[in-house]
Amino acid sequence: MDQKTLRTGTNLAVDSPSLLADIAETARFGGTAKGGICRLALTLQDRQVRDWLGTQAAALGGVLTVDSMGNQFIRLPGSDPSLPPLVMGSHLDTQPTGGKYDGIYGVLAGLSVLRALQRSGYRMRHPVELVNWTNEEGSRFAPAMFSSGVFAGAITELQAYEIRDVDGISFGQALEEIGYRGDEPCGQHPVRAYFELHIEQGPVLEKEGTTIGAVTGVQAMRWFDLRLNGQEAHAGTTPRAMRRDALLTAAHIMIMIDEIAQSHGEDTRATVGIIHVQPGSTNVVPGEVQMSLDLRHPDDDVIAAVEECIRKEAARQAEQQGIAFSMKRIWKSPAVHFDPACVELVRRAASQTGQTCRDIVSGAGHDAAYMGHICPTAMIFIPCRNGLSHNEAEHAEAGDIVAGANVLLHAVMAADAHFDPV
Amino acid sequence: MDQKTLRTGTNLAVDSPSLLADIAETARFGGTAKGGICRLALTLQDRQVRDWLGTQAAALGGVLTVDSMGNQFIRLPGSDPSLPPLVMGSHLDTQPTGGKYDGIYGVLAGLSVLRALQRSGYRMRHPVELVNWTNEEGSRFAPAMFSSGVFAGAITELQAYEIRDVDGISFGQALEEIGYRGDEPCGQHPVRAYFELHIEQGPVLEKEGTTIGAVTGVQAMRWFDLRLNGQEAHAGTTPRAMRRDALLTAAHIMIMIDEIAQSHGEDTRATVGIIHVQPGSTNVVPGEVQMSLDLRHPDDDVIAAVEECIRKEAARQAEQQGIAFSMKRIWKSPAVHFDPACVELVRRAASQTGQTCRDIVSGAGHDAAYMGHICPTAMIFIPCRNGLSHNEAEHAEAGDIVAGANVLLHAVMAADAHFDPV
Repeated sequence: MDQKTLRTGTNLAVDSPSLLADIAETARFGGTAKGGICRLALTLQDRQVRDWLGTQAAALGGVLTVDSMGNQFIRLPGSDPSLPPLVMGSHLDTQPTGGKYDGIYGVLAGLSVLRALQRSGYRMRHPVELVNWTNEEGSRFAPAMFSSGVFAGAITELQAYEIRDVDGISFGQALEEIGYRGDEPCGQHPVRAYFELHIEQGPVLEKEGTTIGAVTGVQAMRWFDLRLNGQEAHAGTTPRAMRRDALLTAAHIMIMIDEIAQSHGEDTRATVGIIHVQPGSTNVVPGEVQMSLDLRHPDDDVIAAVEECIRKEAARQAEQQGIAFSMKRIWKSPAVHFDPACVELVRRAASQTGQTCRDIVSGAGHDAAYMGHICPTAMIFIPCRNGLSHNEAEHAEAGDIVAGANVLLHAVMAADAHFDPV
Repeated sequence: MDQKTLRTGTNLAVDSPSLLADIAETARFGGTAKGGICRLALTLQDRQVRDWLGTQAAALGGVLTVDSMGNQFIRLPGSDPSLPPLVMGSHLDTQPTGGKYDGIYGVLAGLSVLRALQRSGYRMRHPVELVNWTNEEGSRFAPAMFSSGVFAGAITELQAYEIRDVDGISFGQALEEIGYRGDEPCGQHPVRAYFELHIEQGPVLEKEGTTIGAVTGVQAMRWFDLRLNGQEAHAGTTPRAMRRDALLTAAHIMIMIDEIAQSHGEDTRATVGIIHVQPGSTNVVPGEVQMSLDLRHPDDDVIAAVEECIRKEAARQAEQQGIAFSMKRIWKSPAVHFDPACVELVRRAASQTGQTCRDIVSGAGHDAAYMGHICPTAMIFIPCRNGLSHNEAEHAEAGDIVAGANVLLHAVMAADAHFDPV
């Protein structure tokens, strides 16, 4: 490579064999018989993969910092020591029956970017960092993503330390036990911008044959508990006109929810995932139904309108059919809109590296959602087979894995020019 | 009473205080704190109430016979020893949380009829009998009604003897243990006609303010197991157009079933009482649904048409939505049509005793359904509060209880004239 190419960096690329080898190697820590990973936060397996990451950091001459939530940062210096770092990252913990890519891919691709920058001799003005967030999944310590939540000031460290797993072990205690309670107070680490690369965990990119998703934000999400109370009755002796069938009304409400969701555009997601019926007997007209509703939309105003519309229509349907109805909101997460400039850097990086790209909204939560509150943030998605995630069969194609890592590399390089211009 | 009244019997009536007292007294055998009865077949409590019935038989000078299924018959002689008996009856066993009327009322009212006939000196040509069928409920030994089933030749005694309760005790063994395996081979007992008096176990009579239901038959019943297989998917990342939501399709099918049932007339009953969803998580689009369907109609041809229509429409809906669908019939019971002459005797008896009366089809199974296969049969219903049955709160009004018993008395007296005319 001549000096010019090095400076513009247009030909720079990650070393794909070592990225793929890292994915295979780290999959051993908690690897399952079915080819997935069980690596719950702050377990022995989590410590092993953290130790492995530390070894890689040392090998490429990076500086490792661990903060008080166990978040690991690996830093390559930039040419201007006064500038805050550009940070890439994701998480190395998994679901109990997780796959080899969810979170892991973003960390290992970030590592491959650090290596590409370091080995090429290409000099960034900003420091570049990789972060491994603690306990993104929330499988052992609920809720999900609380370490980036503490980092962003949305949750206090004290609250987080007191969260317990099913065995009663607190997060703080588990962190001490694996030796990853670091010295740096969580949240005091400067970040100029944050980029997170991830598998889509949905079917859109694969179905469209698009390699890169430029993630514009994270959907607003609301969870509800719906209850219907009618009248338990004998299935053989009770005429239709005398029934108050809670399940039949629930069926009408489910269809109405779907129609309202569809009428609010294709970005609306409405899902009834749980339904329980009482008494639950073949020859008894159901007296009670409890069901869940998961509502999502990229826009807070639209999700509020959808909720309002469902409340009104469901109450009307229930009343018509003599059914008592309640709809309780049990969880709410506002929409996250990523930094338009950062998203544009991702689009351009995709274009520069010759990849197809489309805008996409994340349907799942990510650490980037919290980071978006405190610094310019964007995410990059690649396809995953059948949209499958949180599953041992989770799969991403090698070509897409490498393409995504190169888009991350070029987005970060472009961010170096974009932020704090000389 | 003068000789003329005695002979026509128009003024004959049951002794209401003793009927109501019998109901209260026998409710002690297995009585529950909530005012119901737990008297499972062939338990100590069942033996106690059987012994009590035997004592009553002796007190009124009746002849007690117990058959090889434990069915108890109490006989009053008629003036013509060559004629087979007119039989009234029901059952004294209950559900685990049963009420004081289901079955019990028919037996104790029959006892009050025997007493009325015996004490009045009114002479019947046919012998008159009361039967207490063993294990009508089927709560301890499933299925329900198998002792009348053996009596009617629909089930073999050998099969019945081998049926076991949850503790592995066989019906035959339990029958021996309470001393109620009688000498008379079950089914060899002659019956000229059979009348069963029962609470409606549904809301129709109460709602209409009618005291007597002249039961024209028992509905045909069919049970089905419906399965839907779609695609489990992430609720946040999977657009509507890419979903194959088994529960949403199930909702469409439930509404379609209701519409088809309604379009086949008000006698059609269709009930989805059980629904199970996999994986059953708030943020996962359901991949699998299993649900029950209970279908009933008084006419075998109509129920077959309804089934056919549901099969076709459900398969069409499922196919449209990319859902694999199956509908397996797991149980079938044909319609029973009671003897028109016996039903007419009931209507007339209601009229003679000054009671309001309407034709009604039984939505639940009864021993009379098996008896209908081997002899002229009819049933008489009275209202029960809120249609509630199989419940400790089951209730019937004293006035209705007495009215029903008098209709039974006069129907049996009219049957004496109707059958085997001189």
